[in-house]
Amino acid sequence: MCTNSNCILNYKKKYLKVLILIVGVGNEFVYDEWLTQHTNFKGATVERLSNDQFLMPGFVDCHIHAPQVAQIGLGLDMPLLDWLNTYTFPLEAKYADQKFAQKTYAKVVENTIKAGTTLASYFGTNHKESTLILAKEALRQGQRALIGKVCSNQNSPEFYVETTDKSIASTEEFVKDIQKLETDLVKPTITPRFALSCTKELMAKLGEIAHKNDLHIQSHISENLSEIDFVKSLYNTSYAEAYDNAGLLTPKTVMAHAVHLDDEEITLFGKRGTSVAHCPASNNMLSSGLCDVLRLIKNGIKVGLGTDVSGGNSMSIQDAILRALDVSHHLEFVKKQEIKGSGRLEVQDQAYQPLNYKQAIFLATLGGAEALALSNITGNFAIGKYFDALIVDTSNYPLHNYNASNDNKSPDLILLEMIQKFIYVGDDRNILRVFVAGNQIKN
Amino acid sequence: MCTNSNCILNYKKKYLKVLILIVGVGNEFVYDEWLTQHTNFKGATVERLSNDQFLMPGFVDCHIHAPQVAQIGLGLDMPLLDWLNTYTFPLEAKYADQKFAQKTYAKVVENTIKAGTTLASYFGTNHKESTLILAKEALRQGQRALIGKVCSNQNSPEFYVETTDKSIASTEEFVKDIQKLETDLVKPTITPRFALSCTKELMAKLGEIAHKNDLHIQSHISENLSEIDFVKSLYNTSYAEAYDNAGLLTPKTVMAHAVHLDDEEITLFGKRGTSVAHCPASNNMLSSGLCDVLRLIKNGIKVGLGTDVSGGNSMSIQDAILRALDVSHHLEFVKKQEIKGSGRLEVQDQAYQPLNYKQAIFLATLGGAEALALSNITGNFAIGKYFDALIVDTSNYPLHNYNASNDNKSPDLILLEMIQKFIYVGDDRNILRVFVAGNQIKN
Ligand SMILES: [Zn+2]
Ligand SMILES: [Zn+2]
Repeated sequence: MCTNSNCILNYKKKYLKVLILIVGVGNEFVYDEWLTQHTNFKGATVERLSNDQFLMPGFVDCHIHAPQVAQIGLGLDMPLLDWLNTYTFPLEAKYADQKFAQKTYAKVVENTIKAGTTLASYFGTNHKESTLILAKEALRQGQRALIGKVCSNQNSPEFYVETTDKSIASTEEFVKDIQKLETDLVKPTITPRFALSCTKELMAKLGEIAHKNDLHIQSHISENLSEIDFVKSLYNTSYAEAYDNAGLLTPKTVMAHAVHLDDEEITLFGKRGTSVAHCPASNNMLSSGLCDVLRLIKNGIKVGLGTDVSGGNSMSIQDAILRALDVSHHLEFVKKQEIKGSGRLEVQDQAYQPLNYKQAIFLATLGGAEALALSNITGNFAIGKYFDALIVDTSNYPLHNYNASNDNKSPDLILLEMIQKFIYVGDDRNILRVFVAGNQIKN
Repeated sequence: MCTNSNCILNYKKKYLKVLILIVGVGNEFVYDEWLTQHTNFKGATVERLSNDQFLMPGFVDCHIHAPQVAQIGLGLDMPLLDWLNTYTFPLEAKYADQKFAQKTYAKVVENTIKAGTTLASYFGTNHKESTLILAKEALRQGQRALIGKVCSNQNSPEFYVETTDKSIASTEEFVKDIQKLETDLVKPTITPRFALSCTKELMAKLGEIAHKNDLHIQSHISENLSEIDFVKSLYNTSYAEAYDNAGLLTPKTVMAHAVHLDDEEITLFGKRGTSVAHCPASNNMLSSGLCDVLRLIKNGIKVGLGTDVSGGNSMSIQDAILRALDVSHHLEFVKKQEIKGSGRLEVQDQAYQPLNYKQAIFLATLGGAEALALSNITGNFAIGKYFDALIVDTSNYPLHNYNASNDNKSPDLILLEMIQKFIYVGDDRNILRVFVAGNQIKN
């Protein structure tokens, strides 16, 4: 305890279990000297990162289907409907079995943490009890998470669909059950599967529940061209309006995909403060399309990245960064070049600059936290935010330090090169330690 | 030794060190029964793969710059020329130092083997001695390889360029030095860096050397639009003709990239039997363009995959498979869809079917061997070919066997799902053992 009321030690005391301070940067820094001026910190544990390590904010996965981790990588050569009917729906239906859910969800959380995800927005299944198990697993393992019991009362297989009443009642109970956990770490999020699988009545009711309790909301939008046609025929509105008319587009809403949004829908997203989870891997694997996230960002939409497991084939947001760069580069080619053998785009844009890796890292961290409306507490290192962080180690690359001329590089460049190594060549093996709210949850 | 002259034991005796036979498939197979009918094989070592393992042909990397592994992942946000001048040329120049080469190339071969590459077509540097070190390392570690001393006598930095005479003499000596190794495993390949960095005179002389000794040839073609313009202005021909006029397009030639080839150039490739190394990762990273490999394949061109390290960011051909699928899917979108915010391609092709994972695995194995004109000895499991193989283990995936309904799946489907898991979710950790010519080179 410090007698100076402005001291960081007195800040937000009620949440403080562990106090983690970054007190120096670079080889020049001498901790013992610093300590003579900050005697409060005598006895603190000091961590020094090696020259091959750096600290970064944890990854935010804005869209992942926890139950589907069990089938990751399977059926990705199938058309969407075959994939859903052969793999996804039968698998999700299995989560009626809570033992199966317990076993599976423990592994899901363990593996997303391993991949560096400190905050995830999870889809569960229609089953309230199993989805609660997912929430408890995130809490037990110390991961920050939004957890959604999925709602679907139409256009779903007979073995995996709810009545409207059941869907509403389960959702309300689920929200209460999570609130009973009395934790800041895990929060409920209202989760209509997508407009097609919910009646207007259910959508409106879910909107009401969200407003009444000021809840987070997540769903899917404009993923696939035939899906969009179907929604329009069912709702007689645009896809975005189908959600908006139910009160489901809010500043706490994140919508996955948004590949084919019309300009008017983007304007509506902007008005509502609604975000997009960009899922480049699954947009590709499930043959959805090329999502131009820069078009969204330029129009003021908050964007984060999503793995969208198991439409996406990787649990890693580091992989999602690379896939987002791929999509953006490919869009650049389309806008600027003749595609050999295929011709040229009518409307060209020679000024188009693709996403760069720094922007993509932003989307993977603070951008994701903003998209999930949680940037007040996480997403970067700022006073008052939780310490949700990764310690990345780059020493396992072949020849990572071949270049003896490192001595001549600026510290900034050395750090940037380490970050590039991790993003472009790395994987979970480089994520040495993972922290959420100051607690180490991977080691 | 068998008295029956048709017995496989008498086949190609002079090359036989280890005889590896696949004698049974499936859980039904009983080795002891088989042995009663094949008494020759008493005392043989028997390997049984577990239910989570499968055997596949080794990966073929048709295009990789061995010296650049030391900078993998760096500078990929730079324009091509900056990347070359800041990173690539200064690094390659360092290989004048043979000690540096020895240390580096040992790691390069070790790590490509780790990634499952049983056959690689390597670019070295301009330095004959160091490139010979690379050849010896591949031989020492048991990897099959084509090794090219790189030639460049113009349009290169002052600190990294040869005279015409030196380039020719070094190449001839290099070929002889490799031949002195008296191995079937490692062969020389004539390697003009690309048409821009070689004078017509040097190109023609390299063509002659290749013809005289019936050698493999490798280079780059049509990677980048401004490069293509420069070549045309220098040679007053198409890019392909620049090589063809020097006699460098042969059935043993593999050209990397070929992103922007004109129809006439593809026809010329077809006539010459020349192949393409498709390098999807680096075509993206270095902002080259979308290469439609199906356009090449439909026109009868042999195609393999290349990592193109370090324009590409991964040493793994399994990663190249995924990137090839990405590019093909994105091409599908471009040909069929309006790209939102950007318009629509003039010439559409609603019938376009993207590459599927089975085709991509072909490109990564037998397709690659064909592209390198080595499919007579490797690329798949066929009588008379070497046993160049991977044992892949899929048991480390989270929940890889969640589905107890495996019992109801056909053996074919179980195997296909294992392959999908490896290709879509796997990495080098799944490559348990690597064999070249029957010798285990990774364990
Ligand atoms: Zn989804
Ligand atoms: Zn290359």
